[in-house]
Amino acid sequence: MTDPVALTAELIRCRSVTPTEGGALVLLADRLSAAGFDCRRVDRNGTSNLFARWGGRGHERTFGFNGHTDVVPAGDTGAWTADPFGAEIRDGQLWGRGATDMKSGVAAFVAAAIDFVTDTPPDGAIVLTLTGDEEGDATDGTIALLDWMQTEGEHMAVCLVGEPTCREAMGDMMKIGRRGSMTAYFTARGVQGHSAYPQRARNPIPALARLVQRLDAYSLDQGTRHFDPSTLAVTTFDTGNPATNVIPGQCRATVNIRFNEAHSSESLADWMAAEAARVTEETGIEIGMEIKVSGESFVTPPGPLSALVADAVEAETGRQPELSTSGGTSDARFVKDLCPVVEFGLVGKTMHQVDERVETAQIDELKRIYTRILSGYFG
Amino acid sequence: MTDPVALTAELIRCRSVTPTEGGALVLLADRLSAAGFDCRRVDRNGTSNLFARWGGRGHERTFGFNGHTDVVPAGDTGAWTADPFGAEIRDGQLWGRGATDMKSGVAAFVAAAIDFVTDTPPDGAIVLTLTGDEEGDATDGTIALLDWMQTEGEHMAVCLVGEPTCREAMGDMMKIGRRGSMTAYFTARGVQGHSAYPQRARNPIPALARLVQRLDAYSLDQGTRHFDPSTLAVTTFDTGNPATNVIPGQCRATVNIRFNEAHSSESLADWMAAEAARVTEETGIEIGMEIKVSGESFVTPPGPLSALVADAVEAETGRQPELSTSGGTSDARFVKDLCPVVEFGLVGKTMHQVDERVETAQIDELKRIYTRILSGYFG
Repeated sequence: MTDPVALTAELIRCRSVTPTEGGALVLLADRLSAAGFDCRRVDRNGTSNLFARWGGRGHERTFGFNGHTDVVPAGDTGAWTADPFGAEIRDGQLWGRGATDMKSGVAAFVAAAIDFVTDTPPDGAIVLTLTGDEEGDATDGTIALLDWMQTEGEHMAVCLVGEPTCREAMGDMMKIGRRGSMTAYFTARGVQGHSAYPQRARNPIPALARLVQRLDAYSLDQGTRHFDPSTLAVTTFDTGNPATNVIPGQCRATVNIRFNEAHSSESLADWMAAEAARVTEETGIEIGMEIKVSGESFVTPPGPLSALVADAVEAETGRQPELSTSGGTSDARFVKDLCPVVEFGLVGKTMHQVDERVETAQIDELKRIYTRILSGYFG
Repeated sequence: MTDPVALTAELIRCRSVTPTEGGALVLLADRLSAAGFDCRRVDRNGTSNLFARWGGRGHERTFGFNGHTDVVPAGDTGAWTADPFGAEIRDGQLWGRGATDMKSGVAAFVAAAIDFVTDTPPDGAIVLTLTGDEEGDATDGTIALLDWMQTEGEHMAVCLVGEPTCREAMGDMMKIGRRGSMTAYFTARGVQGHSAYPQRARNPIPALARLVQRLDAYSLDQGTRHFDPSTLAVTTFDTGNPATNVIPGQCRATVNIRFNEAHSSESLADWMAAEAARVTEETGIEIGMEIKVSGESFVTPPGPLSALVADAVEAETGRQPELSTSGGTSDARFVKDLCPVVEFGLVGKTMHQVDERVETAQIDELKRIYTRILSGYFG
């Protein structure tokens, strides 16, 4: 039997702060290879990734796991009550960076997969996609793995991402999708001048104020079947003009949108560009817009995969998990292009914080849930 | 005959950058005393001021002049083509800091007053109020002189401020008043939060954007008989939030108003406070306001004093000066509490700039105009 707590502790001791591999993927490749997995490093542009498969390539019944071994920096190490990379076990909890996000999740599904194929070799395949960059730009992480899989004819029929998803108690929530996230950067350009003679200047501030106020006041939607209402937040508005007798020539504002399936980043960019053009028409002030998209919204509608996971969770924890689409982004946004994907992991309360830690019992419980999911899938 | 060009040059050589006296007032006191003026230094809190009177104290027919000998800093001296304190005469122009604003004006009325009392001693008095701080805070400059005059029973029946007032050509404009100027500093306070969950935060930006847009859109007035319409300019709007995933807790904006006699700083502050309160009521965002008043608006309605000055200007230049209330503030805003006040001086094109300079012929012309005004007043 593979101990997922010991494996999590070994992973925590690997200093795999993004984008450093830190020995984490090497360690996992060793363990998986020893259990008969075919392991391949799929590094790209300095990002380390690991692909592992048990069973035949391209098998119709291939269950996939996705996770990451990189962690965010420890931050203020002096504020920690434990060594962030020491993996100390104290008061029934395992302490260290990555204890919840998500070395425990990786250890749990790796341990579950190894023991499952050892104890009850399935008629099918298990694929593990592990990346060393989920916390950073993520441009050469899971994307690189999926690109490589396409080239190589590798397959996943379904995929489970092991990110922490529970809110308060083990089993209370799983994710079946995520909202999209995008940021619009606006720059309004007028004509600088003396504030005593506004008629000789063209002030960009009221024009940009009008735009952000309109965007803010607009109700994007009332929510959809699987999503909360989309939200828009004006995160900054800056001019940097120290002189009260000068009308500035330029000012900037930033708007962040978290959107559901009622929109795409393109439809929202079109809407904002139209609103900016309307303000330009009304005021004569040119307003430029740049868009950065973190991810589109997506949902895997409730069905066999979510039922499989929810049933396993309920059998182990007694809780029927809420099927949620809340929270930020995860690599599920990439996997969803390949196959149905859901997310389930432990309680993420201390993720990214000082004194990140997890109850060791949760890690054991998570391994049992993942094992039950595999049994259900191949049973 | 007192040469106003030579006197201007002597004054330019005094490095009287605010609040330094630089020898300028000492020089003028010497000249005026020698011509029979009773001179008194009226310094207060480190600011140097000079009061000079020819004739009896409190005489009903007392003509007053007001001006300042302090200058703004030379700025980028490397960009000057002449020594800013060298008073070089080149191409018919006198070069140096204060050449237009307003050592030439001071020299012209000092020279005119000295020669006038010497050649044709009037039945009346001439008072000169000269300050060493008009360009700075001005709290202990002309105000100190006027305070002292009240205490001492000193009087001016009318007053001419010798600031540069002409726009393009000598004689094209005089000032019979000035708009008021005030600045409002707004701070909107909400509740900081994650931009993915705007419902848990309270964003101050859209509220402040709404306020400044409303203030900007409001038409304060259509102008009055002697004034252009009042103007309002939003000069800055700042948040200083670098994170696109954080809704800021606070933001600030600044509004500058140049207002005519249809308003007072108090009525405008009341209006802005009411608009801010309305936005608070609509949005729940508290908006604080601080007010700084540079000066109230004032006007000396066209009458004997403006006619006296305008006639003298027309006789010397052939131009009937426009009676204007445009531009920034001057010490006329203080003098107006004591007696009717108008402003006339030369063309101010290069004031506060690098290579400040003036045609020497304009200084001579200005002295002739001031002399003609004195003749008209006492004649």
